[in-house]
Amino acid sequence: MSDSKAMSCAVLGIDLGSSAARAVIMTPREGRILGDGEAPYPSGVDSVLTDPADPDVARQSPFDYLAAITQAVRAAMAQARTARVMGIGICATGSTPIPVTANMQPIAGQPGMQDRPAAQAWMWKDHSAAAEAEEFAASMARDNPARLAATGGATSSEWFWAKLLKLLRADPEVGAMTAAFVELQDFVPAALCGVDDVAGLVRGVCAAGHKGHWDPTRGGWPDLASLSRLHPELGRAAGPLANPRSHTQAVGRLCNAWAGRLGLEPGIPVAAGLLDAHAGALGAGVAPGMLVRIMGTSSCDIALVEGRAHAIPARGLAGAIDDSVVPGFVGVEAGQAAVGDLFAWAARLLRPGEPTGATIAELSALAAGLAPGESGLVALDWNNGNRSVLMDPALSGLLLGQTLATRPEHVFRAMLEASAFGARRIREQLEAAGVPIRTVMVSGGVITRNALARSILADVLGVPIAVSGASQASARGAAITASVAAGLHPDLGAAQATMVPPPESVAMPDPGRAATYSRLYGHYLTLHDAFGAATAPLGGMMRDLRALRRAATSSSNGANS
Amino acid sequence: MSDSKAMSCAVLGIDLGSSAARAVIMTPREGRILGDGEAPYPSGVDSVLTDPADPDVARQSPFDYLAAITQAVRAAMAQARTARVMGIGICATGSTPIPVTANMQPIAGQPGMQDRPAAQAWMWKDHSAAAEAEEFAASMARDNPARLAATGGATSSEWFWAKLLKLLRADPEVGAMTAAFVELQDFVPAALCGVDDVAGLVRGVCAAGHKGHWDPTRGGWPDLASLSRLHPELGRAAGPLANPRSHTQAVGRLCNAWAGRLGLEPGIPVAAGLLDAHAGALGAGVAPGMLVRIMGTSSCDIALVEGRAHAIPARGLAGAIDDSVVPGFVGVEAGQAAVGDLFAWAARLLRPGEPTGATIAELSALAAGLAPGESGLVALDWNNGNRSVLMDPALSGLLLGQTLATRPEHVFRAMLEASAFGARRIREQLEAAGVPIRTVMVSGGVITRNALARSILADVLGVPIAVSGASQASARGAAITASVAAGLHPDLGAAQATMVPPPESVAMPDPGRAATYSRLYGHYLTLHDAFGAATAPLGGMMRDLRALRRAATSSSNGANS
Repeated sequence: MSDSKAMSCAVLGIDLGSSAARAVIMTPREGRILGDGEAPYPSGVDSVLTDPADPDVARQSPFDYLAAITQAVRAAMAQARTARVMGIGICATGSTPIPVTANMQPIAGQPGMQDRPAAQAWMWKDHSAAAEAEEFAASMARDNPARLAATGGATSSEWFWAKLLKLLRADPEVGAMTAAFVELQDFVPAALCGVDDVAGLVRGVCAAGHKGHWDPTRGGWPDLASLSRLHPELGRAAGPLANPRSHTQAVGRLCNAWAGRLGLEPGIPVAAGLLDAHAGALGAGVAPGMLVRIMGTSSCDIALVEGRAHAIPARGLAGAIDDSVVPGFVGVEAGQAAVGDLFAWAARLLRPGEPTGATIAELSALAAGLAPGESGLVALDWNNGNRSVLMDPALSGLLLGQTLATRPEHVFRAMLEASAFGARRIREQLEAAGVPIRTVMVSGGVITRNALARSILADVLGVPIAVSGASQASARGAAITASVAAGLHPDLGAAQATMVPPPESVAMPDPGRAATYSRLYGHYLTLHDAFGAATAPLGGMMRDLRALRRAATSSSNGANS
Repeated sequence: MSDSKAMSCAVLGIDLGSSAARAVIMTPREGRILGDGEAPYPSGVDSVLTDPADPDVARQSPFDYLAAITQAVRAAMAQARTARVMGIGICATGSTPIPVTANMQPIAGQPGMQDRPAAQAWMWKDHSAAAEAEEFAASMARDNPARLAATGGATSSEWFWAKLLKLLRADPEVGAMTAAFVELQDFVPAALCGVDDVAGLVRGVCAAGHKGHWDPTRGGWPDLASLSRLHPELGRAAGPLANPRSHTQAVGRLCNAWAGRLGLEPGIPVAAGLLDAHAGALGAGVAPGMLVRIMGTSSCDIALVEGRAHAIPARGLAGAIDDSVVPGFVGVEAGQAAVGDLFAWAARLLRPGEPTGATIAELSALAAGLAPGESGLVALDWNNGNRSVLMDPALSGLLLGQTLATRPEHVFRAMLEASAFGARRIREQLEAAGVPIRTVMVSGGVITRNALARSILADVLGVPIAVSGASQASARGAAITASVAAGLHPDLGAAQATMVPPPESVAMPDPGRAATYSRLYGHYLTLHDAFGAATAPLGGMMRDLRALRRAATSSSNGANS
């Protein structure tokens, strides 16, 4: 490179999201963004490979990730001509594991395997392993019940082991070829470092703990004997299960081939990967006492607490994992299964055929003219099931209080309120588990674009809602990990101090509205407990309606026409 | 008249509906319609005089009724040139009482009283006397509890005594001028007969029993001492309270003045009036074992049972009244507070700004392609409160089971199903009270225009649903009473045999769909009992949401904008 004196010391953060890769190049000292880039995944419908026979299938091509990274990083570098990249950090959706060969190549790249569904990346929202998840949970409850406690007493069809078990059963041929099942957050660092032997694979702590049931205080990875009882190949096909590494440490250095592709110098340290939401929390400034809500189609809520995970009763939370966000702290995750998706659903229901974004803006403007309680409605926000605190994907929505005068804006406001009530229920679960929440930081287009949603969230939670000033919070979080892994900052807290911008705005709760919402929240809680607990009198109803729907949809007749 | 040999013996039925008067002239022997006419009420908004300060007020101008009758009858007579009218029958909405002077003139016609709200007709759907209804019920429960049993253990803000008590309190000047409070069904026959002294007023059995708490086996009218304790003028302002007369008997003969106005001969016998829904049941062919459902914005369900009313446990029903439809039988009334209104509400919610009728047709066509259970939804049909069997206007709607895939046609079908479940609950209450229901006859545009609604009703009730072939069933029922009062038929059954046409069509239940609906109905019942009973754990929620809505609407601020 020409004149190194004019060059800025920089780090590169890469975020592999659900539909695109983003890259951001920033200065670790000033937190200045020198360049950014974004590239979509070209394959499938909205970047997802689906299966007409099974609506729960959601796959992606592993090669799309690599192509998109190349394009996004080159676009960012084109803007950041003065950057001298000193470290690379990577975050990704997860659990999004990819079956690979012994030399770390995706099975999907093997001859004849290009279109084989099981050979692709198993996207986080693939729910085809529901039965396997139940089987895995039952096995773990029998063999090592304490381990389940760290993930709220449950496993999920979205997670690593259920997906691998499903793969082995659905496609034994792919299973036999699989030398390792590798999370996207771990696959990309390995690829960038030119790792060509599964023995050299290093997994990151974040996905290992939150999605793979790795638990340092309870024996590390699930034991192979238990796994073998579920499927004789399960332990082998998982690949090497060494102790995972923190994303504050490098897993290797950028190889020549990838340096050439990306327009970077070889040898740059590459940090261990982490999950995108957790990186987003880092990028938004997560610290003890703060709840960071990454709000998109769904929400991922991240908090930190001092101490060790085994002291946190994680029931009702998605996980409490040692060091998963910041070393030395427990990273606690919770979430709502539909946030932006819920608002978009309401917009589609109430204004079919019109652009969803425009409808949301229009309904929000009308709904802003209503006072709390004026709609006469209360709703449950479970149209996509309940992630926290009930962890039951079979739950569904509820709307109550309609009169003949109920208008679309009343229903829409009830959805915004229900979403905020769901967040309050999560906050209460966190506090009951010993995770104090004094401030809430939100990030994501759904909430940053909607002042009414923010105001309602502040009134319902009764705390100020700060809107993160960090654009591309996840990529920024990845850049923060890069700065530590490259030795440019001593720890993540020091990196955050310079690389996290101040909040863009703060929505303050209004005491009068908050009081009305507390009364409405009482009704929400009553409904939550009445319909949410499987043992409650009304607890089986949503599940049975789902069963009836499945039966009706699969039967060929019965319609009136 | 020219040549009486060419003239057809005919009867005239007049129906004073919510927004228009209808007249039908038909032959009592063949049941042939010779002419009909319709005329709207010109005053107010959609024929209703409202009060911006009180949304519960719904009044009509008494003079509108007389003008509309004149116009409708003359239009019918213009078609029926060969008719020789031998009897006149009248049915009307109710309780729709009118305050009149000692010479039977509406107070609204007195000097300075033309625009006075209390001086108008108090339309059936006027709910401004809610507090007075509770007060009246409490007083009756204390003084004569058995009397309340005939009307399901309750009174209503829609009924006669609550409205009179409200009138006396709201406008003492009008109260002092009121020599009698006269149901519309009784006011019109008196007017046509030229009655000019309240002493000559004859009330009809139907409104007296169903709306005025007249009960022949429990002392007739409520006793004056009890009424006086509520208000010293209550007994006096009600006017003469003689034993009411059956609509199979004449109350007088057409006077010269009205004969001239209507283009009829004077001296024609005029039958005592009855309520429009009960007349509609007669016109549709009501008989023991048959439930007639008059389905419009709401539904009024009428059944007959042999025996006397005091043997019928009427709790949960709107009333079980001796001889109120057919002498010798108990007339049992129940109903749903929103049927057509519920479907129209859904259409407005889901397609705002589009014509309601077109939307209902479009959503029905889409919903017909779904099988029972396929929507995944179950709803309560209480958007306008619950009339039967809970008799609680403070209840509201509920929709349960929504997912992100729920579309407008799913919601619309759930409304049709909820309405049918509400009908099944009423049928079960009737059968439990000893009123067997073997067939169901429906009448009214909402159900005759919608094949899907009929099909769902058949599947949910599990019985054939016959669609009445009687156009203008209420006016036809009034004509049937005229034929008996004029001596052209010996009794109502004989009149029905010639004057009620066969059903237009019959929807048969499908066993497969019926089985799925029985399972869904189980969920409806669970929700019905959980939210409907004030003492149930969830029983106070809808009432509290209503209170919150009122408080929010009346307070000036609190909105987010």
